[in-house]
Amino acid sequence: MSRLRGRFSGEVDADFQRFSSSSTADLAIAGEDLEASIAHATMLGECGVIDRDDAATLIDGLTRIADDLAAGRWAPTDEHDDVHMAVEARLAELVGPVAGALHTARSRNDQVATDVRLWLVRRLDELERAARELVGVLTDRAEADGQALIPGYTHLQRGQPILLGHHLLAHAWAVARDAGRFADARRRADRCPLGAAAMAGTSHPIDRQRTSDLLGFAAPVDNAMDAVAARDHLQETAAACAIVMGHLSRIAAELVLWSSAEFRLVTIDEAHATGSSIMPNKRNPDGAELVRGKAARVFADAQTLLILTKGLPMAYNRDLQEDREPMVDAVEQTRACLRLTAAMWRRLEVHADRFEDELVGDSSLATELADLLVERGVPFRQAHEAVGRLVLLCDRRGGGLELADGGAAAQIHPLLPDDLSPWLDPRAAVERRTSLGGTAWSEVKRQIAALRAWLSAS
Amino acid sequence: MSRLRGRFSGEVDADFQRFSSSSTADLAIAGEDLEASIAHATMLGECGVIDRDDAATLIDGLTRIADDLAAGRWAPTDEHDDVHMAVEARLAELVGPVAGALHTARSRNDQVATDVRLWLVRRLDELERAARELVGVLTDRAEADGQALIPGYTHLQRGQPILLGHHLLAHAWAVARDAGRFADARRRADRCPLGAAAMAGTSHPIDRQRTSDLLGFAAPVDNAMDAVAARDHLQETAAACAIVMGHLSRIAAELVLWSSAEFRLVTIDEAHATGSSIMPNKRNPDGAELVRGKAARVFADAQTLLILTKGLPMAYNRDLQEDREPMVDAVEQTRACLRLTAAMWRRLEVHADRFEDELVGDSSLATELADLLVERGVPFRQAHEAVGRLVLLCDRRGGGLELADGGAAAQIHPLLPDDLSPWLDPRAAVERRTSLGGTAWSEVKRQIAALRAWLSAS
Amino acid sequence: MSRLRGRFSGEVDADFQRFSSSSTADLAIAGEDLEASIAHATMLGECGVIDRDDAATLIDGLTRIADDLAAGRWAPTDEHDDVHMAVEARLAELVGPVAGALHTARSRNDQVATDVRLWLVRRLDELERAARELVGVLTDRAEADGQALIPGYTHLQRGQPILLGHHLLAHAWAVARDAGRFADARRRADRCPLGAAAMAGTSHPIDRQRTSDLLGFAAPVDNAMDAVAARDHLQETAAACAIVMGHLSRIAAELVLWSSAEFRLVTIDEAHATGSSIMPNKRNPDGAELVRGKAARVFADAQTLLILTKGLPMAYNRDLQEDREPMVDAVEQTRACLRLTAAMWRRLEVHADRFEDELVGDSSLATELADLLVERGVPFRQAHEAVGRLVLLCDRRGGGLELADGGAAAQIHPLLPDDLSPWLDPRAAVERRTSLGGTAWSEVKRQIAALRAWLSAS
Amino acid sequence: MSRLRGRFSGEVDADFQRFSSSSTADLAIAGEDLEASIAHATMLGECGVIDRDDAATLIDGLTRIADDLAAGRWAPTDEHDDVHMAVEARLAELVGPVAGALHTARSRNDQVATDVRLWLVRRLDELERAARELVGVLTDRAEADGQALIPGYTHLQRGQPILLGHHLLAHAWAVARDAGRFADARRRADRCPLGAAAMAGTSHPIDRQRTSDLLGFAAPVDNAMDAVAARDHLQETAAACAIVMGHLSRIAAELVLWSSAEFRLVTIDEAHATGSSIMPNKRNPDGAELVRGKAARVFADAQTLLILTKGLPMAYNRDLQEDREPMVDAVEQTRACLRLTAAMWRRLEVHADRFEDELVGDSSLATELADLLVERGVPFRQAHEAVGRLVLLCDRRGGGLELADGGAAAQIHPLLPDDLSPWLDPRAAVERRTSLGGTAWSEVKRQIAALRAWLSAS
Repeated sequence: MSRLRGRFSGEVDADFQRFSSSSTADLAIAGEDLEASIAHATMLGECGVIDRDDAATLIDGLTRIADDLAAGRWAPTDEHDDVHMAVEARLAELVGPVAGALHTARSRNDQVATDVRLWLVRRLDELERAARELVGVLTDRAEADGQALIPGYTHLQRGQPILLGHHLLAHAWAVARDAGRFADARRRADRCPLGAAAMAGTSHPIDRQRTSDLLGFAAPVDNAMDAVAARDHLQETAAACAIVMGHLSRIAAELVLWSSAEFRLVTIDEAHATGSSIMPNKRNPDGAELVRGKAARVFADAQTLLILTKGLPMAYNRDLQEDREPMVDAVEQTRACLRLTAAMWRRLEVHADRFEDELVGDSSLATELADLLVERGVPFRQAHEAVGRLVLLCDRRGGGLELADGGAAAQIHPLLPDDLSPWLDPRAAVERRTSLGGTAWSEVKRQIAALRAWLSAS
Repeated sequence: MSRLRGRFSGEVDADFQRFSSSSTADLAIAGEDLEASIAHATMLGECGVIDRDDAATLIDGLTRIADDLAAGRWAPTDEHDDVHMAVEARLAELVGPVAGALHTARSRNDQVATDVRLWLVRRLDELERAARELVGVLTDRAEADGQALIPGYTHLQRGQPILLGHHLLAHAWAVARDAGRFADARRRADRCPLGAAAMAGTSHPIDRQRTSDLLGFAAPVDNAMDAVAARDHLQETAAACAIVMGHLSRIAAELVLWSSAEFRLVTIDEAHATGSSIMPNKRNPDGAELVRGKAARVFADAQTLLILTKGLPMAYNRDLQEDREPMVDAVEQTRACLRLTAAMWRRLEVHADRFEDELVGDSSLATELADLLVERGVPFRQAHEAVGRLVLLCDRRGGGLELADGGAAAQIHPLLPDDLSPWLDPRAAVERRTSLGGTAWSEVKRQIAALRAWLSAS
Repeated sequence: MSRLRGRFSGEVDADFQRFSSSSTADLAIAGEDLEASIAHATMLGECGVIDRDDAATLIDGLTRIADDLAAGRWAPTDEHDDVHMAVEARLAELVGPVAGALHTARSRNDQVATDVRLWLVRRLDELERAARELVGVLTDRAEADGQALIPGYTHLQRGQPILLGHHLLAHAWAVARDAGRFADARRRADRCPLGAAAMAGTSHPIDRQRTSDLLGFAAPVDNAMDAVAARDHLQETAAACAIVMGHLSRIAAELVLWSSAEFRLVTIDEAHATGSSIMPNKRNPDGAELVRGKAARVFADAQTLLILTKGLPMAYNRDLQEDREPMVDAVEQTRACLRLTAAMWRRLEVHADRFEDELVGDSSLATELADLLVERGVPFRQAHEAVGRLVLLCDRRGGGLELADGGAAAQIHPLLPDDLSPWLDPRAAVERRTSLGGTAWSEVKRQIAALRAWLSAS
Repeated sequence: MSRLRGRFSGEVDADFQRFSSSSTADLAIAGEDLEASIAHATMLGECGVIDRDDAATLIDGLTRIADDLAAGRWAPTDEHDDVHMAVEARLAELVGPVAGALHTARSRNDQVATDVRLWLVRRLDELERAARELVGVLTDRAEADGQALIPGYTHLQRGQPILLGHHLLAHAWAVARDAGRFADARRRADRCPLGAAAMAGTSHPIDRQRTSDLLGFAAPVDNAMDAVAARDHLQETAAACAIVMGHLSRIAAELVLWSSAEFRLVTIDEAHATGSSIMPNKRNPDGAELVRGKAARVFADAQTLLILTKGLPMAYNRDLQEDREPMVDAVEQTRACLRLTAAMWRRLEVHADRFEDELVGDSSLATELADLLVERGVPFRQAHEAVGRLVLLCDRRGGGLELADGGAAAQIHPLLPDDLSPWLDPRAAVERRTSLGGTAWSEVKRQIAALRAWLSAS
């Protein structure tokens, strides 16, 4: 039961106490809460705001609670408003009335803001690492399996043949940008609110710089009201997570597609597949499906954090307690999905020759013919139309460009050669695309080197 | 560990097992899962699909698990894929290999769909009841405190004086519509998927109508693929919850506003208020703030359920496992918020005379003068402009219309009376508004009777 | 320029005027605004609130503006705050100062609420019709092409063979429920706010029932504050649209998949396909992709309408002006997507024999063998495991169950027959599934009849 | 009508053409499209991919179209698929068949990606400038009006007295972080996709670095598939806009609150206020309300861009066409709202003495007494409880701490002084809070200098 009811004459409603307590949701930040309290007590003692011996007593008690928490011997419960009150109550049991001195020159508003920022900068480091790990795995696979020939799709229709390595690096570059977003979010979040108190600062002679240093923050937050009211660092982190999940959902959907009986380009390792309770034949890509599905909740977490602050008056409002669950969910789910995606790709079986023969003479080589006409002086749009008519002709014959015998081609356009076969070789088509960022193996290798350099740079 | 891996040669990855298991999230529907299994076993026995004695054995075992679950002696754990496999494993411990017969003619796809619908129709009943309860409380307070005179606001600027009862019934009617939405959602959700199996139905001679009847559903789902793939009943329920939360957020924000030092129209009961950890003076409307804050997550729950199914191929996909958490969250939070709002309003202290004097002569009576001019033959727009100029004049004199002595009014418009005082009495203004749905007490009373009739009708 | 500034001494900022005007967004409801004004004027005249001749003059003027609007000779512009002020200004030009009488006993708050509801009930009728039309098309195609044999997928892995008709009707039933949601939303929206005035009703002796009748509403809104503050009918409509779009996105994604070179089950008609600007071979399913993409914005429209009202004080706030664009967008996009989906399916080419041979002996027939073992007395779970091992064995041999010669099967389980071929016929497997809602043709036909009856019932 | 249908035998459906065309939505990027085409033609000519004279002809034609667009003499229409085809068609009218050469070595996929990035980096510059402008206005007002004494609120209950300047700078710091997010987003978006072609690069000897330089980008995108498939730069921009709108919605809601009859701390300038159509007295803070309302749509824009890409296969899909409207909306609305907020605050009237007297002796000075007890050796928690009881006592006497005569205080706690008055002076309380970031004027001035330095730094 709360000890903050000096100005109240009645009790809190028991239903409301359960409804409103954040103790369980606070579990994620309980360790940080104790660290922050130890730093606060240290500073209070150093500045003479409280007695040095009292400070030592508080630090001893808090250290013991932190040990108990880490060892699973103690945890906040819904009997208390939140983790802060739970710690304060436990501290009083351990060290007596002097526990009451810990709350000098601070309020729960700056305390929770500090806990959250401390938690956040650490998680952002982990997220950045997990993103880099995935970039590494995708780059490794691009090197190992990258020369496999596959159809390049747009609109899920075959467009032009490409190398698997080219495709995988498109994902790798995207996730590399994601890592950059985590780094930026971390830099902005790295400020210490502690000592801002309710919103106005304090008259006690505290040293906020010292607390910030003790906790490893880059600097204190400049304005005490901003310190307790701001939630944009959570919004930015959740947005960065959501953007990652967008990328991972695309990789995941691709694995589902590629492991289908119709595509059969890859086989998901048994470690990440599951069976059916009724159909003995099934080997389902559940890992990939769950990553795709979890994108939905992380998008919604990002949205929750925005909606939560809409139109809120300054400074702290209890609504903000609701920030913890979407924050923890967005971070934990995104980290787990980054890792699972890396693990799936690390163990994925690629059927490198799946499309090797099938693409010879495929209509997806039509652009080769159009480009050839351009080289022979035809403006591209006219070349495009001529070759389109050739594709239609083959279509009606029931197949791809391999059905365009030379006569047909020449009839469509006089500058088309009699023998199309050099232009209907998909691997040749791929290796022709040496423009910067093109699918030729030389360009894939250049990018692998560039990503490796980036990975080792920091 | 899963027993569905006959076609697999390797083991599942332990990290992935934890990541993918829904056993904990399934806890909410574990009771329904057991009920549905009992109904399924009953039907299988009756139809001769399995031996009658075996059916009895299964039912005994399932009943025992259900009792253990209810008593807290058993619960699904993350060691299993989901609640279904956890029950199956436990049943095998209790009754031996015959447990394997339970899964005849069904799959987890139809099983979870059944559990969820069973859970849902019950929760929708509770939500409807909770909405009705809140309508009742608002109606009671409208009767008890409804004659209190308050400013009616638009744009948070005082518009016209109204009765508190008029204001409260605006909320009551909105929540009454919310109750109707829950009833509609319930009606549509009330179909039984069990026996749809994976998506294609079964060749066993089952009786889906019988299972549906045993579980109290209105009818079986008509199409086996629809039975396992549909999630629109969850989306509709979450949308209905989100709409309620929109209403409750407005009531909540109003309580925060009205309990401020500046408005001081109400005092929130101590049972739903909390103190500050630093400021001894605080008595914060945390109950109302939390309701407002929780709107954000319920909006996001509704969004999650939509995003989850976007573009999903038929029929079941593992993404759909992610439907459980937002569904449970939306329902439970909305129910709790409906109840807390009712509880807060039941115990709220209203300062009925707060605005009684302050509104006399207030500029919010300006419409009275414009309407008077209309009665005297002036087109409304011209009347509106004339009175607007009078308000501006009083404004410059530093106050409301009480500063418009007759001379001023007559100078603005010759048809304005010398003595404005009969038109500057806010209670008279209120009682003049007897149009259908107007703020006059007679109209408030009429609505109270109508809502009472609605409440007792079902 | 606004004429409502009698109490103002200065002018409005020109940038702000442009920013805040809703005249362009109001275009969608301009026709309804004029209808509502004509009804209001009629009622005012009948009740004697304004002179009967004046009423006739107003009605003449309004009718002329309505004609000009319909003929494209007049439209509201951003010079005015909104459509209401634009009409009022135009009316004054046409009929002189008596135009000012039109605004008696109403405000823009109840006026826009009326316009929106009038617009909404009509659009909800159209949406319901469009949903029904799509159900009809899907049912027609289920009858015409429904016997085509296709793989039934879960997790995008082949599960069991099914009929295309079974698959299509799963969509049809879902869209039928969507139609029901539109009908429910319409019923709840069908109330007339006009005459609620600012929020308090009016002292003029108006007849709100009469206005409601003139406009074809079921009844007036009961409470004047609810009349101007409520937006839940918009939220419900947008939620219903979002749920439809979820369904359409699944149908659309399926068309994209099925028209790929790998699935090649359908060919999208050229009328709904487009080419590439660079690749002459492309024939892209853009229609389906756009439907899938538009789901995102309609989901977001539904969110916007929820977020907009979060925590808003009673009654009207200018924020609510922002309701128009998401409302119109959700309704118009959903209607267009329903129609396009119907059009695409109407003209879609289905390659009915695509999977006919490929499914013979496919591993997706494994459930047949497990069910056979059940008939021979083996509990299902044990049967499932045995057949799973058989699938694994065939897998290692590089194919499906057609590779399980009798010896192999018998070695796995003694009750498996020597000759598996009767169980490896996909069409026989389909026709065995005659349970209610199963994929057998008889069940498909039963559902076609049921949907036809539903379609003709209303 | 599209010219890309060489491989089609039939026509596109007219309804579908209208539904699918993005020409109108593309209007925002039409200028950038022309610039990019001019750069492309320049590079093609320089590299000898096309004839130098042809290149000059193309550049002349494109320049003429750009001039016509700027002058309003030409615009893309829905007759064409998109702006690219509209330009191509117009170019052909102007320069004949050579127009067809422009499309060499590029596709609409990389073209639209380039247009969007070009548009985006410019808009991000403008957004950053608009954010900085608002920081400047808030800082100016903090200096000009910052010494006004106001209640500092938490939970909308008075907490402790603060200076208005302290409050305003909390907003200023938040918006300064917003400016930083725009700069980060710009840095990441600043890459040129042109020449990536469909997704595979090209076999023509183009120079992507040159095109990138001509358009002023920092560098080309490294991977051709990433170049056409990535949308994370849009998602990041929209997220940054949404976070800004969260901040602006809080400032806006505060203006609504502070301009109410109950708070009356500020008067919104007439330039940003509007009247009522029925109530002549109203002066509504519509500008602030619209900013608050527009937060909803910008949040939804950010969501749309995330949902759009969920699970999309590589590389381009037509769904992505739907990115334009939410992108433009998020950017334009946010920019307009930043400017309007700056304009409102620039012209806002602050009633600096509104709370000067009212806060003397107010219960929000309770923390002073608790801090005093701490100085006298009482642990803070015990001090907090004692003062809480004193507040309750005054509460029961019907007022604030000014009712606590010395005897009462001493009875509550012996260390409380007889004469509380030095502790009940709000300005003294404010000036005591000199901790870093506290509300004392010295700290406010320090922050003003810091923000001024930041503003002039870049």
